[in-house]
Amino acid sequence: MALEFFWGSGSCNSWRVHLALEIKRVPYESHLLQFSKREHKADEYLKINPRGKVPAIRDGQFTLYESLAILQYLERRFPEPPLLGRTAEEAGLVMRQALELIFYLEPILDRVAVPIYGGKAAEQAEAIKAAAVDLRQELSRLEAVLARTPFLVGDAISAADCTAFPFIQQVLRASGKEAARPLELGFLPLEQTYPSLAAWVKRIEALPGYDRTYPPHWR
Amino acid sequence: MALEFFWGSGSCNSWRVHLALEIKRVPYESHLLQFSKREHKADEYLKINPRGKVPAIRDGQFTLYESLAILQYLERRFPEPPLLGRTAEEAGLVMRQALELIFYLEPILDRVAVPIYGGKAAEQAEAIKAAAVDLRQELSRLEAVLARTPFLVGDAISAADCTAFPFIQQVLRASGKEAARPLELGFLPLEQTYPSLAAWVKRIEALPGYDRTYPPHWR
Repeated sequence: MALEFFWGSGSCNSWRVHLALEIKRVPYESHLLQFSKREHKADEYLKINPRGKVPAIRDGQFTLYESLAILQYLERRFPEPPLLGRTAEEAGLVMRQALELIFYLEPILDRVAVPIYGGKAAEQAEAIKAAAVDLRQELSRLEAVLARTPFLVGDAISAADCTAFPFIQQVLRASGKEAARPLELGFLPLEQTYPSLAAWVKRIEALPGYDRTYPPHWR
Repeated sequence: MALEFFWGSGSCNSWRVHLALEIKRVPYESHLLQFSKREHKADEYLKINPRGKVPAIRDGQFTLYESLAILQYLERRFPEPPLLGRTAEEAGLVMRQALELIFYLEPILDRVAVPIYGGKAAEQAEAIKAAAVDLRQELSRLEAVLARTPFLVGDAISAADCTAFPFIQQVLRASGKEAARPLELGFLPLEQTYPSLAAWVKRIEALPGYDRTYPPHWR
């Protein structure tokens, strides 16, 4: 029986696992949960993840949630290509980058994207602009790394890239919204503001199977 | 040259790495940073961790920060005993438990401990009591696991235990403060409130090298 993958459209946590599944060419059965129907809070799903969050997996009798934990599991079950580093140094750097994105970049991104998606771009313009300053600092850090190497940790794609990519897509989507344009947040066009990051986005979009990971409700 | 370990007294993030170093019997040179002297914000240290947080390590020319990333590195460099699981399933569960502690338990613990340590136990009594309700729910989850197995993931100590232990010590320390007694938070004595958790604490305290990890300023 194929591994089952439970995910939500546009969830960054889901997307990083989805990319890993495609990169490792793991055969999987897709279960796209509808947040609007509260399928992630349904009894059936709470047996898989009592926290009621996506993503989660079921592999035979074994179930698991927390995206970075799922990546650890996948790495052991499907070692090639490795996404958690080939050496001790790479293993450390991959996880460091992934955690920095989650602990530092994500909360800042929320301060930019949540009000824009929530229709409060004009009302909270100053707070969004202040958050954008912090966000540009985090993107500059990524840009500096990607100016030197094709991926966030060296020459091969890793879990660090799988973690960063959905966040960058959210930056592009939020700042590209009509209501966000007047704020001039300084992210678009990415080719001009962060050229190495833009080239890296294209590199990931060119991966086989990438299309299957794209949030359906964004199309 | 021995691996260098940069840490802070009482920092949960530091303590989990410290436990891992002792359990793996890694020879290390200890650098205890003094927060009061802002040694974690000194230029010298910011070269090792530009975020100015503890812990960090230096191993020859290689430097690394973010505690869970350091655990990944140590696991590859010093594989025995494994702290990240022997099987794919264990690897997933260890990381899931560690992440759940950091994402769910830690923010609740902060709501209990920060006001108590900050001398606001009486002033913020109601908020602390409300947080304690949530915290008891997280501790009950751990208690249920530890009623079945000696450690959080099976028979052997893992990074999940190294992550949980400092948090539990903080629960005990905060709720044992004189100012916290009148709040009757329901954590003490642990032997009565959470007997399996109490037995697990003793198991970890009995580890060789444990004493070296104990926060100096708590003595």
